[in-house]
Amino acid sequence: MPDLNETSDLNRTPELDKTLLAVDQGLDPALDRLFSFLKIPSISTDPAHRDACRAAAEWVAGELAGLGFAATVHATPGHPVVVARTDTGAPRRVLFYGHYDVQPVDPLELWETPPFEPRLGATPDGRRTIVARGACDDKGQVLTFLEALRAFRASRGTVPVDVTVLLEGEEECGSPNLPAFLAAHAGELGADIALVCDTGMWDPGTPSITTSLRGILHAELSIEGADRDLHSGLFGGAARNPIHVLSAIIGAAHDASGRVTLPGFYDDVRELPAQVRARWASLGLTADAFLKPVGLSISAGEADRLVIEQIQSRPTFEVNGMFGGYTGAGTKTIIPARATAKISFRLVADQDPAEIRAGFEAFVTPRVPADCRAVFSWGEGARAFLVPPDSPDLTRAARALEQEWGVAPVTIGSGGSIPVVGQFKDRLGMDTLLIGFALDDDRVHSPNEKYDLTSFHKGTRSWVRILDALA
Amino acid sequence: MPDLNETSDLNRTPELDKTLLAVDQGLDPALDRLFSFLKIPSISTDPAHRDACRAAAEWVAGELAGLGFAATVHATPGHPVVVARTDTGAPRRVLFYGHYDVQPVDPLELWETPPFEPRLGATPDGRRTIVARGACDDKGQVLTFLEALRAFRASRGTVPVDVTVLLEGEEECGSPNLPAFLAAHAGELGADIALVCDTGMWDPGTPSITTSLRGILHAELSIEGADRDLHSGLFGGAARNPIHVLSAIIGAAHDASGRVTLPGFYDDVRELPAQVRARWASLGLTADAFLKPVGLSISAGEADRLVIEQIQSRPTFEVNGMFGGYTGAGTKTIIPARATAKISFRLVADQDPAEIRAGFEAFVTPRVPADCRAVFSWGEGARAFLVPPDSPDLTRAARALEQEWGVAPVTIGSGGSIPVVGQFKDRLGMDTLLIGFALDDDRVHSPNEKYDLTSFHKGTRSWVRILDALA
Repeated sequence: MPDLNETSDLNRTPELDKTLLAVDQGLDPALDRLFSFLKIPSISTDPAHRDACRAAAEWVAGELAGLGFAATVHATPGHPVVVARTDTGAPRRVLFYGHYDVQPVDPLELWETPPFEPRLGATPDGRRTIVARGACDDKGQVLTFLEALRAFRASRGTVPVDVTVLLEGEEECGSPNLPAFLAAHAGELGADIALVCDTGMWDPGTPSITTSLRGILHAELSIEGADRDLHSGLFGGAARNPIHVLSAIIGAAHDASGRVTLPGFYDDVRELPAQVRARWASLGLTADAFLKPVGLSISAGEADRLVIEQIQSRPTFEVNGMFGGYTGAGTKTIIPARATAKISFRLVADQDPAEIRAGFEAFVTPRVPADCRAVFSWGEGARAFLVPPDSPDLTRAARALEQEWGVAPVTIGSGGSIPVVGQFKDRLGMDTLLIGFALDDDRVHSPNEKYDLTSFHKGTRSWVRILDALA
Repeated sequence: MPDLNETSDLNRTPELDKTLLAVDQGLDPALDRLFSFLKIPSISTDPAHRDACRAAAEWVAGELAGLGFAATVHATPGHPVVVARTDTGAPRRVLFYGHYDVQPVDPLELWETPPFEPRLGATPDGRRTIVARGACDDKGQVLTFLEALRAFRASRGTVPVDVTVLLEGEEECGSPNLPAFLAAHAGELGADIALVCDTGMWDPGTPSITTSLRGILHAELSIEGADRDLHSGLFGGAARNPIHVLSAIIGAAHDASGRVTLPGFYDDVRELPAQVRARWASLGLTADAFLKPVGLSISAGEADRLVIEQIQSRPTFEVNGMFGGYTGAGTKTIIPARATAKISFRLVADQDPAEIRAGFEAFVTPRVPADCRAVFSWGEGARAFLVPPDSPDLTRAARALEQEWGVAPVTIGSGGSIPVVGQFKDRLGMDTLLIGFALDDDRVHSPNEKYDLTSFHKGTRSWVRILDALA
């Protein structure tokens, strides 16, 4: 690999080696700090955990102050936003974004150990792991960056770039208050480039830079029928059942080929450039290979698309939760008064959340009987995002990752959604590099979430190399 | 109304008047006893209320012992069965069946007052009511019979027929242990006729004798996909969503005309005799009139059927509850691992629960993707029941009701299901008279369940007249 050797020689310096050594020697105390962070049950979507969210914000702000940052915990109508910055007069400034909040932990009974009692574990194939809610998403990933800053400080006394750290506490519930915060603090948040560590690697040995993200739009739909739950014997056969109505709507939202049937849903979806599709096809990812780790084998997506297209460049309609009527133990012979579906759309290319919203309402309304009601509740929505492939910082970061991992990073899209990235572009005029060390088997958003110890350790080393390269 | 006057003269006796007077004079203490019964939260389907079910059984057994009955609380694998009997050597014996268990109370927030703190209330049109879970179904109705026995004892020292009282505590969860109990106690439960007070009146001024019941079959269907909840961004578009699969199945179970599409579902359904259909049509019950009290106006049933047919002589497929994925506050971007529907079928005529079960499984199985699983859980099921229209006791009871209410009772079917009635016929060779005083606005199985004070008072007087007529 002549390229690799050449770039290695160019990039290896005594200072860099000193800082990487500081990372290696500081791994145990770094893990202790991560465990302290993981013990805070900062579930942002659940009002009962409001104090825990503030505690997590205070904890991370304290860590940053300890690293010489001017750190502030800003109150918002929701959970606090942490902003911390250095002002050393370095030639360049990076804005690092992450989130201290985590997903809910239900179903709790599926956790092998309590979600907020972090522990070391191992995968069946022997990789050492950190197990806890947030181990990967996003507390573990956030600390890879903070520990890199700590290693610079320990080895050189300073970081080669000025850094602004922005950590929010509402990413897992749609960041309702972040847009207003960015608008109000645009001045202090400006930087040359934004860095986000909330994405994954291609495989345990191959790093990745995420060059596209799907947008997202949340909706809740309730179908309301009778003004009370009805006895299914006395009214059954005549009274409309909202669960039947809602099920028929959800059941009709995809056709037999896996295509979403909402009107205009694909109007603003772009076809992949031929060479991109060819490159993705060359990766040879089959549905069986992609789904086998989670116990599935057949793609539910559009039959004429590559699996990578289905999860990265194609939009989705997904019911994340549904409930209606009696859901307890045993039986209850009722026709319920209402049924509800929690829905999210993943958006791509030029899809406009407002048009998707209109299309869904146009799809639902004619399917609701005249004596029932459809009640919609909508989130703000975020468009999809694409990183310019010719960004010089993208090239620098890719080379730095190749140094650390010994293989060039895969630059590819992600099916996930990080709305803030679009806001950085729109409100702060900044491009974003999405670099993360999550793996497909991290069980993000699921019981027994984990983060590989290697992701944490080499992720920290990767940030050292990237910040050095960006300087 | 010459018939009425004639029969009145024949039936009015000093003894009867004395006993009816005892009912009127004893109404207040009777209400106190009903309130004591209603305060016991005997929710049979919820294991957390096991002790309350036993307490309800002990309470009613105590009442019967106080009335001179030999009362026993029989343990079963589930909740106890109360059996009490008199042996005065009267020429005839009746078996009275009821249940002391009640439905769950969720959604609790919709109750205007706590469900187990009974109170007197009033309907918008001024009818006085008793409000509590079980006020009607079935504690209030059971006490109309017990208070009639009390009035006989107070006025004559004895009841003109021998009485066996059978009260179970699992009617609201499918009576899983009753068939075995009836088989084991067939000898002591035999009687000339069975009486059940768990049905309704035609309207607040018109009594009714229920001459047919729908059968019932409970099922639970879970669709299982991935072996964990998945991140809907990383897997969305490729991974199968069990909520989508289950919704498509439920959505396809009825066609646009309201007909159930399960294979063979209507094979054993009998057409109504022309004169019965004509009589039902003459009652002029429209969908709007039937559904308006619960906030609906359009029938969801088979388009070519009378509303009375839809709710009494036609079978149903009903989802009583459905749940899957995230159902808490806020959002959670997952593809759930499973989704579940709690289903009940109402059966008519010759429908066989075993054949309905086979038809549903045959309907579901081909609709489940090869990498997902359908998990079925089935109840025992009960066939529909029909009372012989020429039963002499039916005629006697009808006349007694006419005496009390001043109008002849409507003899008609009920869409509800009381499986024990079929078991009385099959195991004890006994016909059953289904006579109850519930009203359509009693909110049975719903928040703010009530029972009209008139139903309680004149219901008790009705049993006095009926027992006198059956003697």
